[in-house]
Amino acid sequence: MSEKIKVGIVGGTGYTGVELLRLLSQHPQVQLHAITSRKEEGMKVAEMFPNLRGKVDLAFSTPENAALTECDVVFFATPHGVAMAQAKELLAAGVKIIDLAADFRLQDTAVFEKWYKMPHSCPDILAESCYGLVELNRQKIANSRVIGNPGCYPTTVILGLAPVLEASLIELDHIIADCKSGVSGAGRKAEVGTLFSEASDNFKAYGVSGHRHHPEISEQLAKLAGQAVGLTFVPHLVPMIRGMLSTIYVKIKPEALATDFQKFYEERYAHEEFIDVMPAGSLPETRSVRASNQLRIALHRPGNGDTLIIVVVQDNLVKGAAGQAVQNMNVLFGLPENTGLTQVAVLP
Amino acid sequence: MSEKIKVGIVGGTGYTGVELLRLLSQHPQVQLHAITSRKEEGMKVAEMFPNLRGKVDLAFSTPENAALTECDVVFFATPHGVAMAQAKELLAAGVKIIDLAADFRLQDTAVFEKWYKMPHSCPDILAESCYGLVELNRQKIANSRVIGNPGCYPTTVILGLAPVLEASLIELDHIIADCKSGVSGAGRKAEVGTLFSEASDNFKAYGVSGHRHHPEISEQLAKLAGQAVGLTFVPHLVPMIRGMLSTIYVKIKPEALATDFQKFYEERYAHEEFIDVMPAGSLPETRSVRASNQLRIALHRPGNGDTLIIVVVQDNLVKGAAGQAVQNMNVLFGLPENTGLTQVAVLP
Amino acid sequence: MSEKIKVGIVGGTGYTGVELLRLLSQHPQVQLHAITSRKEEGMKVAEMFPNLRGKVDLAFSTPENAALTECDVVFFATPHGVAMAQAKELLAAGVKIIDLAADFRLQDTAVFEKWYKMPHSCPDILAESCYGLVELNRQKIANSRVIGNPGCYPTTVILGLAPVLEASLIELDHIIADCKSGVSGAGRKAEVGTLFSEASDNFKAYGVSGHRHHPEISEQLAKLAGQAVGLTFVPHLVPMIRGMLSTIYVKIKPEALATDFQKFYEERYAHEEFIDVMPAGSLPETRSVRASNQLRIALHRPGNGDTLIIVVVQDNLVKGAAGQAVQNMNVLFGLPENTGLTQVAVLP
Amino acid sequence: MSEKIKVGIVGGTGYTGVELLRLLSQHPQVQLHAITSRKEEGMKVAEMFPNLRGKVDLAFSTPENAALTECDVVFFATPHGVAMAQAKELLAAGVKIIDLAADFRLQDTAVFEKWYKMPHSCPDILAESCYGLVELNRQKIANSRVIGNPGCYPTTVILGLAPVLEASLIELDHIIADCKSGVSGAGRKAEVGTLFSEASDNFKAYGVSGHRHHPEISEQLAKLAGQAVGLTFVPHLVPMIRGMLSTIYVKIKPEALATDFQKFYEERYAHEEFIDVMPAGSLPETRSVRASNQLRIALHRPGNGDTLIIVVVQDNLVKGAAGQAVQNMNVLFGLPENTGLTQVAVLP
Repeated sequence: MSEKIKVGIVGGTGYTGVELLRLLSQHPQVQLHAITSRKEEGMKVAEMFPNLRGKVDLAFSTPENAALTECDVVFFATPHGVAMAQAKELLAAGVKIIDLAADFRLQDTAVFEKWYKMPHSCPDILAESCYGLVELNRQKIANSRVIGNPGCYPTTVILGLAPVLEASLIELDHIIADCKSGVSGAGRKAEVGTLFSEASDNFKAYGVSGHRHHPEISEQLAKLAGQAVGLTFVPHLVPMIRGMLSTIYVKIKPEALATDFQKFYEERYAHEEFIDVMPAGSLPETRSVRASNQLRIALHRPGNGDTLIIVVVQDNLVKGAAGQAVQNMNVLFGLPENTGLTQVAVLP
Repeated sequence: MSEKIKVGIVGGTGYTGVELLRLLSQHPQVQLHAITSRKEEGMKVAEMFPNLRGKVDLAFSTPENAALTECDVVFFATPHGVAMAQAKELLAAGVKIIDLAADFRLQDTAVFEKWYKMPHSCPDILAESCYGLVELNRQKIANSRVIGNPGCYPTTVILGLAPVLEASLIELDHIIADCKSGVSGAGRKAEVGTLFSEASDNFKAYGVSGHRHHPEISEQLAKLAGQAVGLTFVPHLVPMIRGMLSTIYVKIKPEALATDFQKFYEERYAHEEFIDVMPAGSLPETRSVRASNQLRIALHRPGNGDTLIIVVVQDNLVKGAAGQAVQNMNVLFGLPENTGLTQVAVLP
Repeated sequence: MSEKIKVGIVGGTGYTGVELLRLLSQHPQVQLHAITSRKEEGMKVAEMFPNLRGKVDLAFSTPENAALTECDVVFFATPHGVAMAQAKELLAAGVKIIDLAADFRLQDTAVFEKWYKMPHSCPDILAESCYGLVELNRQKIANSRVIGNPGCYPTTVILGLAPVLEASLIELDHIIADCKSGVSGAGRKAEVGTLFSEASDNFKAYGVSGHRHHPEISEQLAKLAGQAVGLTFVPHLVPMIRGMLSTIYVKIKPEALATDFQKFYEERYAHEEFIDVMPAGSLPETRSVRASNQLRIALHRPGNGDTLIIVVVQDNLVKGAAGQAVQNMNVLFGLPENTGLTQVAVLP
Repeated sequence: MSEKIKVGIVGGTGYTGVELLRLLSQHPQVQLHAITSRKEEGMKVAEMFPNLRGKVDLAFSTPENAALTECDVVFFATPHGVAMAQAKELLAAGVKIIDLAADFRLQDTAVFEKWYKMPHSCPDILAESCYGLVELNRQKIANSRVIGNPGCYPTTVILGLAPVLEASLIELDHIIADCKSGVSGAGRKAEVGTLFSEASDNFKAYGVSGHRHHPEISEQLAKLAGQAVGLTFVPHLVPMIRGMLSTIYVKIKPEALATDFQKFYEERYAHEEFIDVMPAGSLPETRSVRASNQLRIALHRPGNGDTLIIVVVQDNLVKGAAGQAVQNMNVLFGLPENTGLTQVAVLP
C-alpha cells in the first residue's frame, strides 16, 4: 500500500480510546489524523494518557473542527447513540465507520430501543452495516462501509459457541454463560461502584436481571443456530484491570456424544490467527492474552459426560474492543488481518 | 459458664491457623492452651503473624510437648491425614476434635482414598464423626466428639441448594456450580502458581477435570436430595485475598414453577443468624462478609423462567473455615452459637 | 457505667462513616442514636453498606430531623467546614463534638484559611478545642468539649517523631517524611483518579507541591520541638484499600549519637496500648494493623550512622481516622481507652 | 544488516527471561537460537509462559546441548554466579555476553564478595566488562564484549541523580533514595513472602539494614561525583506486578540555588529517547511506562527551597532489566538503539 490510511477517532477519552491510540500509533499503515472530544478540546492526548508521551502528538479537537470528513475511516469510541448521529454525513463524504458502541450491533431496532432507551435514528444504515466479528463475517465486512464492533462479552460467548452451533451439536434451551470481566470494561466514568476501594479485593455478580449484551449474544447465537436459543448470561466483576473469562456450559445432544470436540474446535479455527484452541486439559488465564488481540479457548468434558464446558479468555480492551476494531479496519482496507496486531501478550 | 474452654491447635502456621487464632483470642469463653508446629518449635506465634502482636503470647511447641491431651478441644489446621493419625489418642483422653482438613468430611472411605491418595486410618472414628455444617446438622454436632469441618466451596454450594433439595423443587441431573475463590483458599505454601506476580491481575479456572470438593459436595447434596445428583463444579481463582462467590444454576421442576423462591428461602433460613437471605434483586459482594462469619444468599430468576440462579458469598477463611470451626465448637460446648463470632464485616 | 453514650454521626456515607459505624455498633457502651445525610434521607444505612446488614438498623435522616441535640456526642464524618457550622448549636445543647475533618485541627486560622479556602467561622470554639492525638494530649482531651481528630498522615508522622523531638535528639532543618497511603484515604467520592482501573497496578506520588496535611504536621512538630521545623513531606498512593506507611528520615544531633533509640522509643511508649514499638530490625507491614487501632513503629539506623529511619504503619481508616475518634470518645467520657477497640488486625 | 543476530538465553524461566523472550521475539534483527534450563529440559517455552503461544516455538535445552557457542550474543537471566562461570568459554568462541545478574555490575570484587557471598571467579573479565547503563556509557558499551546489565533500583537512582552529580550541584553527604518496587522484582521463586495472600493489599519496607543494590548505586554515584557519597537507600514492596518509583531527596548546594533544574534536566537528557523529563509539576505514574522501555523523571522543589525532589519511574522488568539488556545489545551490534523497543506503554 503506498499511502497510509487516514484515521479519525471520535471520543478518545475512555479506555477503548486510549487503547485504540496505543494500537494505531504503532500500526505501520495508519496515519492518525484527528481525535475529538468536545470537553477536552485543545488538550494534548498525551497529557490525559501519559503512556502516549512521545508517541502521539495529537490534541483533542471539537467534532466540528476535526477534519473527520477528510479521513478514510472513523472509529467511534463514544457512548451509545453518537455514531448513528454522525454516520450519514461521514458516509456521504466517503468515510468508513467502525463503531465501538452498540449503535450497529443489534439488527433488531425494537430490541435496540428497549435496551438502550433511545430510538434508532438510522435504520437504513443499520440495515447495510455488518456485525464486525471477523472470524464469522470476514467477507461481508470487506464489502461494508459501517461496522458494528462487537461487545466484549459477546465476542467470547459467540466465538466460544460458534463451532457447536454451526454443527448443531448441542441442546439449545439451557445454555449457560458465566462470564467474568476486569473492571476496565466499565469504562472511565467517575462512578462510586468502580472506585478502587469498592472494586478491589472484592468479587460480585451484576446485571443478573438483564444486561445489554444479552440480546446481542442471543441474536448472534440464533443466527448461528438457525433458531432462537435459551441463554442464561451472568456477568461478574473481577478485581483486575483487563481480562475477560467466560465459562460456558452446554449439554451435548445425544447424537453428538461421540464427537471429539477438541479436534473439532482445532479444525474449525485452524486458520484463525487470533483464535488459539489450547491443548486438551488446558486452563486458560486472562494474563496469557493481556494487551494482545489473542482469544484462547479450552474445552473440558468432565467424566466424558454430556456436559461440555467451554472456557474462553481475551483482553476485553483488545480482542473485546480496540484490537478487534483494528482487525476490522484491516479487513475493510484489504490489509493483512494481523497488521499492527502482532504484539505478544504481557506476562507477568 | 464458669470455666473457659481449653483449646489446642495443631498446625497453626497456615491461613486457617492464623484466622483461628484471631477469632479464638477474642472469644470470651476460650483459653488458648497450646499450638503446635514441629517446624517452627519455639517461635512466638506473633513473630510469624504480626497482627497477633500483643494479642497472643503463645509459642509453637512440638506435637509431643504440647499438652494437647489437657485440652477440652483440639482444632486441626493441618494437611489432610494428620487429624486421623492423632484422633484416637485425643478421644481417649476425652478431648473433642474439630478437623479443618478433609479427614472427617467424606463418609465414604473409598471416595476419600481415591481423592486424597491415602488410606483412611480410622474408619470407626469417621463413622461416629459428624459433618460440621451447623445449619443442617446442629443437633447431631452437639452430641459428637469429632467434627469434620466442611470445605469452603461445599459450604456455599450446600447451603445454597439445601432449601430446594430438601423440598424437591429442582431437577437433579444438571446442577451447575460456577465458583470463585480468593487466593487464600490455596493456603500459605510457597508455590509459583500463587505468587503475587502470577495470581494478581489475572483470572482463571482450575481443577476443571476434578477437584476434591466435588465428591464432598455431591455426597451432601445426595443426602439432601435423597438420591444422587448430577453436579458440574468449576472453581476459579480471583485476584483477591479473601472471599468466595458461588453462582449456582438449577432448573426448576415444572410442578414447582409457581414457587416464590425468595419467600421460601427467607423462611427456611429465618432463624439462622449466620445466613442472610438478601432482598429480591440483590447482588451480594464478597466484601460484604469480609472477616465475618456471615454467608449471604441472593436469588435470581431471569424472565421468571425455569432457571433459578442462586448466588452465595462468604469469607472462605471464616464461614468457609475457621469461623465455622468456632461455630462448631460453640455448639459442641453448649455455648450460644454466635459467641465470639459477632464481628461486623470489614468494608471497605 | 449504667447508661450508654448516645451517639450521632453527621454524614455517614463515606469510608470514615462506615468505619465509625463498624466500630460503634460493636462498642459495648454506645447507643447509635442518629445518622444524617441530606442526600440519602430515608435510606437504610445497611443498604448502602452491606457489611452492616443485621448489625445496624438505622436509616439516614436529614440533619434537621436528626435528633442530634439529644446525643451525648456527635461525630462529624463530613467534608471540611460542616462541623464548624453546627458546632455552636450542639455545644449549647451540651453535646460534645469529635470532628474527623479539618475544622479543629489547625490552631492557626490563617493557615486554615489558606489551605482549606474558606474562612474559619468559629475561632472561639477552635481556641477551646483540642487536637485529638490521645497519646500526646490525653489530659487535655478529657477536659474538652470539641476534638479535632488528627489527619491520617499527621498521626503517623507526629507519633513517629514525638520522642526524638521532645528530647531534642535530632536536627530540625531537614526532616523528610516519605508517606504512602492506601486509596481509601482519598474517600468515597466518584472521581476518575481513584477508579480501580486508574489506581490499581500503579504507584505514584501526589501533592508534592503542597498537601493539606503538611501545615498540620508542621504545627504539631513545632509544638513538640519548641520551634519551627523544616519538613519535606511527600505522600504517595498505594494500590491497596487500607493501610499507611511512613518512612521518616532524620539526622541525629552530634551530641545524641550515643543514644539507644530502640530502648528510648520502647520506654517512651511503654504504656501506650495502641502504639507498638517493634523489636530492633523489624519491618512493619500495613497488613499487621489492618482493621485495628494499632500503630506500629520500627527504628533503623544504617551502619549506626547519623541517619535515623523511623518506619510507622497504621490503618488509615482506624488509628488514622475512625478508631482514633472512638479512642477520643472513650477519653472524653472516662471509659477505658481501649473500649470497643480491641479487635485483632485481619491478616491475611 | 543482512543477517540476524543469533541470540541465546541462559536460564529463561524467570520474569526477566520471559520478558526477554517477549521483546526479542518481536525484535526485527534477532533470531532466537537457544534457551537453556537444566531443570525444564525439553519443555516448550510457551508451555511455561502461555503468552508466548504461537510466538516462540523454542523448547528449553540443557546448557550442554544448547548451541550457545554458535550464538552472537548470550543473555544470562540467571542467579548470580552463573554468568561468570561460563563467560570465559563463550568469549573464547567469540560470543558477546549480557548478564542480567550481578556478576559484572560491581567493579570492586571485595564489595561483590561481601554482598553476594561468593568469590568472583573471573576478575580479569570483570575488568574489561562495562556497566551497561547506555545513557552514561554508550561509547564504552559499543566496544565491549561483556556487559553487566544494571540492577533495577540502580537504574532509577543513578539516572535520576546523574545530571546534578556530574555538575556538582548537590551536597553529597545525605542523599536519600526512598524506592518502591512492584513484586515481580522479587522474581519467580516459590517463596511465602511473595505469595499473593502475603503481598497483596499490603505495603512494607524491606532490606533497610542492607540491600545488594546499595553498593552498586554507591559505586556509580561516586564515579559520577568523583568522590564517595553518603546514600540512604530504603526499598519498599508495592502490591503491583510491574513498576518502580524512586523518590530521591537531595540538598542543593548554596552556590547552585539559582539553577533552573527543570531546564537543566531537560537539556541533559534531550537526546535520550528512553528518558522523558516530564514538564514542571508532573507526577509520574508507574503505569505510564508499563511494559515499555521508557523511564520518566519529574523534578520538584517545594517552596523553591534547598531541597530537590527527583521522582523517577520505570518498568522494573523492561528499562530495569530485559529492555535495558536489549538496548545494550543494540549498541553492541551497532543497531539503532531503539530497535525492537518502541512499544507504547500499556495503560490502563
